[in-house]
Amino acid sequence: MPSFFDDRIFREASHLNGFSGNPIERWSEARGDIEPEAMLAADNAALYLFADDRALLRVDGDGLKPRFRPDEASGLGLDRGSLILLGIGPDGPLLAGLVPASEARPDDVKAIDLRSLAIQDVLDPADLAALAQARSYLHWHAANRFCGRCGEPLLLKGGGVARACVRCDMRLFPRVDPVVIMLAIDGDRCLLGRQARFAPGMYSALAGFLEPGETIEEAVRREVKEEAGITIGRVAYHSSQAWPFPHSLMIGCHAEALSTDLAPDADELEDCRWFDREEVKLMLSGEHPEGLKAPFRMAIAHMLVRAFVERS
Amino acid sequence: MPSFFDDRIFREASHLNGFSGNPIERWSEARGDIEPEAMLAADNAALYLFADDRALLRVDGDGLKPRFRPDEASGLGLDRGSLILLGIGPDGPLLAGLVPASEARPDDVKAIDLRSLAIQDVLDPADLAALAQARSYLHWHAANRFCGRCGEPLLLKGGGVARACVRCDMRLFPRVDPVVIMLAIDGDRCLLGRQARFAPGMYSALAGFLEPGETIEEAVRREVKEEAGITIGRVAYHSSQAWPFPHSLMIGCHAEALSTDLAPDADELEDCRWFDREEVKLMLSGEHPEGLKAPFRMAIAHMLVRAFVERS
Repeated sequence: MPSFFDDRIFREASHLNGFSGNPIERWSEARGDIEPEAMLAADNAALYLFADDRALLRVDGDGLKPRFRPDEASGLGLDRGSLILLGIGPDGPLLAGLVPASEARPDDVKAIDLRSLAIQDVLDPADLAALAQARSYLHWHAANRFCGRCGEPLLLKGGGVARACVRCDMRLFPRVDPVVIMLAIDGDRCLLGRQARFAPGMYSALAGFLEPGETIEEAVRREVKEEAGITIGRVAYHSSQAWPFPHSLMIGCHAEALSTDLAPDADELEDCRWFDREEVKLMLSGEHPEGLKAPFRMAIAHMLVRAFVERS
Repeated sequence: MPSFFDDRIFREASHLNGFSGNPIERWSEARGDIEPEAMLAADNAALYLFADDRALLRVDGDGLKPRFRPDEASGLGLDRGSLILLGIGPDGPLLAGLVPASEARPDDVKAIDLRSLAIQDVLDPADLAALAQARSYLHWHAANRFCGRCGEPLLLKGGGVARACVRCDMRLFPRVDPVVIMLAIDGDRCLLGRQARFAPGMYSALAGFLEPGETIEEAVRREVKEEAGITIGRVAYHSSQAWPFPHSLMIGCHAEALSTDLAPDADELEDCRWFDREEVKLMLSGEHPEGLKAPFRMAIAHMLVRAFVERS
């Protein structure tokens, strides 16, 4: 009798996407009872620091160091009101906090965007994943200082796992926005589009926010119809990716095109067209004659395209 | 050469979950430019109405009628400030709005919880799915009347697709909370637990909110570890379900147990244990000797359990 677990189905593609592999034990229930400030005193406590949405890194001979000791964080102007506890890392408690965006910093401390860090692949994946967690939490807390129901200032609850209203009792938990990102396929061709903001020559899979009341598959069909005018039949989940800009969950799928005449939404896409497998291979290898490019390796869209090229 | 689309992978389980099959064309971009009030004048416009979180239904000879004409909605005390546009249904524009919870209503108009409607399977699935969409939007708008960043009252933007702050320019979009729900499997056994609030004798799959910075598979492993003490290896996506309580996306998976000694979190689960396939079959068919039950058919947990029983 075949196993319920079929190797073909169970290859975990998500682990190959950027920002995966976070080794932090989150203790999701227990950490709500812990004051982050108290954890700063623990042996080996370390902090990830952000100035607005950019991560602080210390440049040293061996590369970029993303973790700071509590005394270093204080020296950089840590805002103690922003402190959250990410959980317990391999070497001790890991916290995150904000420093002033404007403060003068030592020459060897740089503020760098997470997207650049992921594309350049210059950090340990465990640190990159922890930075993604930290950025999503810090951004969400900064955007949720007041109660949406009654307007009262919200308190940050222990560990940063929630915010709470003392007036109306609302408890608010960090938000994760599910986004469907899908590669529509018509036989030997796949559908790629580009937004005006993309790097020159880059084409990617279509994507959009899942709306309340939809399944993943329904959202995939709606988005491809709205953005490209294409009717989708079957939808196959491929992998997922934490996307800390500011706090999305990318849900990657392959999608079977049942129609082929494109009617792109000009407000969303600058261009959108069918690419055959051979052309996509050249885009992946950087050898496309017109310089067209596939998405960066760290992005789930890259993996969706690669799976299409390799699996058929 | 085999097709990229393999029938075994591509059976769409999500379509069998309750609240799926919403036929509304959402026009997700365009409907933000439409004033819901203006759509009330359209021929064949109809409304789904809620009193707090319960749907209004008119009882008549043929069953329960969930859609109301604009004049009927006015007669029931429709709050025009709550109006949102769901999109275009098969018979015309479909809107949603709130009526006062306390207002006296005609004897033939009842306010009923969506969970009961789904379990009793008394509505057309298209109406049930539209009610799920409506409930999620209405609940979210009611909980987001003030700007989380600056505390200013938020304006509802056309169609109800967003809210916006006139003071700090924040635009806020309806929230969908991804939840992982997973059936851990050890050979011929699966792991089911029960929370104290469950109906007597009912056991279900474990579940929890996905946190910022996690992939779906990472969230599945964390939740099963935290709730039951079990280590998980491979994770396989099965299906998803819109869950309007108030606005979740249930992401259903099967998960391979790599350990079997249970250490349940007593704060979360009243009980948690391994059930062999034969026992689960009796729970599904309602013939369990001790009266233990599987989740209701409309719930994704039911389908996860059924797939385990049927596929191995």
